[in-house]
Amino acid sequence: MTVLTDTLSANNAAYASSFTKGHLALPPAKKYLVLTCMDARIDPAAALGIDLGDAHVIRNAGASAVDGLRSVIISEQLLGTNEILLIKHTGCGMLTFTNDDAHALVQKNLEADSTGIDFLTFSNLNQAVENDVKFLKDSKFVPESVNISGWIYEVETGKIVNVVPA
Amino acid sequence: MTVLTDTLSANNAAYASSFTKGHLALPPAKKYLVLTCMDARIDPAAALGIDLGDAHVIRNAGASAVDGLRSVIISEQLLGTNEILLIKHTGCGMLTFTNDDAHALVQKNLEADSTGIDFLTFSNLNQAVENDVKFLKDSKFVPESVNISGWIYEVETGKIVNVVPA
Repeated sequence: MTVLTDTLSANNAAYASSFTKGHLALPPAKKYLVLTCMDARIDPAAALGIDLGDAHVIRNAGASAVDGLRSVIISEQLLGTNEILLIKHTGCGMLTFTNDDAHALVQKNLEADSTGIDFLTFSNLNQAVENDVKFLKDSKFVPESVNISGWIYEVETGKIVNVVPA
Repeated sequence: MTVLTDTLSANNAAYASSFTKGHLALPPAKKYLVLTCMDARIDPAAALGIDLGDAHVIRNAGASAVDGLRSVIISEQLLGTNEILLIKHTGCGMLTFTNDDAHALVQKNLEADSTGIDFLTFSNLNQAVENDVKFLKDSKFVPESVNISGWIYEVETGKIVNVVPA
């Protein structure tokens, strides 16, 4: 174990000692999913008031719908969700480098060729939200009955701002 | 807007009204990342005591390291994380169907061919944790200096159990 895992294990023991939600069902009770970024400054449950058991939460670098598609399909086809909130955010790391930058950095640091990986960076935040919502709406794997909206979370204020209406 | 987005927007307005963490830096303060499942019964921040700004959180169906690799590389190469906790969980949906089941369901429901997508299901939970930790440790894109551990979160108790030590 490390100092970190010791600390997190102790935190978890405190959480488990007062845990009362062991009875929840597998499918999300409120049938929605949130697809957002892995960014450390986002706590989706707190920021949106998601109760335990209510919603799937998919997170990856940049809140990429392309990257999240496998999970989205499982969520709506296997586990019954019918509403998707796609939430990117201000100050996203994906705005700060390009795909080529990442490939070059990996080559320099690790002497490894990552050119087969699309890091899915973007240069315009609002446009990226619109593009990803469109990607999901156009996907043959997402039925029209699934309601999809696009949002930006402001890491400076804690607020969400709607970009593509539900 | 929908009933759901109205509710979540109201929840978020309450969150933002007392928000005091607008100054946090982009890189995770405690330089670690948690890779876990999108399951609705998991609240990683609460269950592990992750403070806002401390850690990246990657979530996808089944806590797949294969699916999460792009985000992992960005986290450790671009944003300085050096410790990974991979956390799968009891009662995971990915234990309840096979890749073929998912392809057949998508064909039946959506008349769409998803056989090009590997849904990354698994049949043995402990083995899946071990496999995914090994996948990351063996990856040429994850340097040996990154500490990786494997865990199972029990949705029945709220506890995490160590499977692969850090």
